[in-house]
Amino acid sequence: MSTVIFALRRLDGGEAARVALPLVRRTRDPHEGQWALPGGWLDIAESLDAAASRTLAETTGLAPSYLEQLYAFGAVDRSPTRVVSIVYWALIRADEISEDAVEPLFATENVQWFDAAALPRLAFDHNEIVDYALWRLRNKVGYSRIAHGLLADEFTLADLREVYEAILGRRLDPANFRRQVENSGTLIPTDRFRTGSHRPARLYRYNQDVELADRGPLDAVH
Amino acid sequence: MSTVIFALRRLDGGEAARVALPLVRRTRDPHEGQWALPGGWLDIAESLDAAASRTLAETTGLAPSYLEQLYAFGAVDRSPTRVVSIVYWALIRADEISEDAVEPLFATENVQWFDAAALPRLAFDHNEIVDYALWRLRNKVGYSRIAHGLLADEFTLADLREVYEAILGRRLDPANFRRQVENSGTLIPTDRFRTGSHRPARLYRYNQDVELADRGPLDAVH
Repeated sequence: MSTVIFALRRLDGGEAARVALPLVRRTRDPHEGQWALPGGWLDIAESLDAAASRTLAETTGLAPSYLEQLYAFGAVDRSPTRVVSIVYWALIRADEISEDAVEPLFATENVQWFDAAALPRLAFDHNEIVDYALWRLRNKVGYSRIAHGLLADEFTLADLREVYEAILGRRLDPANFRRQVENSGTLIPTDRFRTGSHRPARLYRYNQDVELADRGPLDAVH
Repeated sequence: MSTVIFALRRLDGGEAARVALPLVRRTRDPHEGQWALPGGWLDIAESLDAAASRTLAETTGLAPSYLEQLYAFGAVDRSPTRVVSIVYWALIRADEISEDAVEPLFATENVQWFDAAALPRLAFDHNEIVDYALWRLRNKVGYSRIAHGLLADEFTLADLREVYEAILGRRLDPANFRRQVENSGTLIPTDRFRTGSHRPARLYRYNQDVELADRGPLDAVH
């Protein structure tokens, strides 16, 4: 089991938020010393979903609210012994990565955030797995309200646009973007504003009647 | 490994085509005598995709052109011993199910087509798996040209509408449907017509520049 966890982070003091993911440095062979996706082994009395949550908590301390099965990777030569890896992917919101809760674990230097678009050579087939997860994220941001998985409960239109820009890897026109999301009917304006160095910006929230991502019959089952 | 194979069939001499799938009668415990999805075990030196194709051919004789990983099912109690099943799904076109090639195998009475909307109680969690596959099919028919996976190379608009009606489980207005698909730009009219008891109907084909279903980076890898 491995998990690709995406968050929006400002890395190395950069201006623009990037899609980032935490990686774990391997402490044993194969691939000792290389960076790899957080993960672990499925226990005999544990469902796949439960194993994904547990291995993620054990390796990174993170407990994302959005965690979904991505794909089973089973190429014969992906590992020295035959290993089929059932990979999950997760989105984690900025307010779920409080410095208090998470950074101590990360301070071990064996867990670190990386820019998803500029990864080193990872262990096993993990570069390929991240590429596939990024493709799924880009795809899904078009037809579901999955961007919410990377945002706090209330956000400005500029926050939302930043998520889309980071995922799609290109700048979006602010006026067009505002028109499109206002027409989509998925956002509810609140009567609160964010104030600060810029002029006050209205805070929005997502319409909770719409699921984050429709998983169909599996939503009820798991 | 198990596979859900969807085809469009006229069952029991019914008028309307239905989404149907072949099931295999189990000849041993657990669930001896019950119907189950075709499948088998992963070999040690075989990729997941290869195992899905092989087990499908061995159990049903079918070799669908569209075969894609669906989901890994791993509930602890889904089988008497702990078994994680990596499930594939396939679409098979009417012209891939020639009576010559396939029906002899089916004549063993241990393989049979069933209406996907009216299944008996299946072995293991296979009803749940079929429900999930049907949900994925309905979902995907909206935003990709996956309906093609159930059609011959050339088809009339009535053929195409029949596929959509069978998948969505409701009648569609012929004039609206024609306008929508003509506006979608995915169909190319040929200069051939189907003649018969009705007035001649133009044959169309799909624009092959568009992938049947975009699988992203995995298209290149597998």
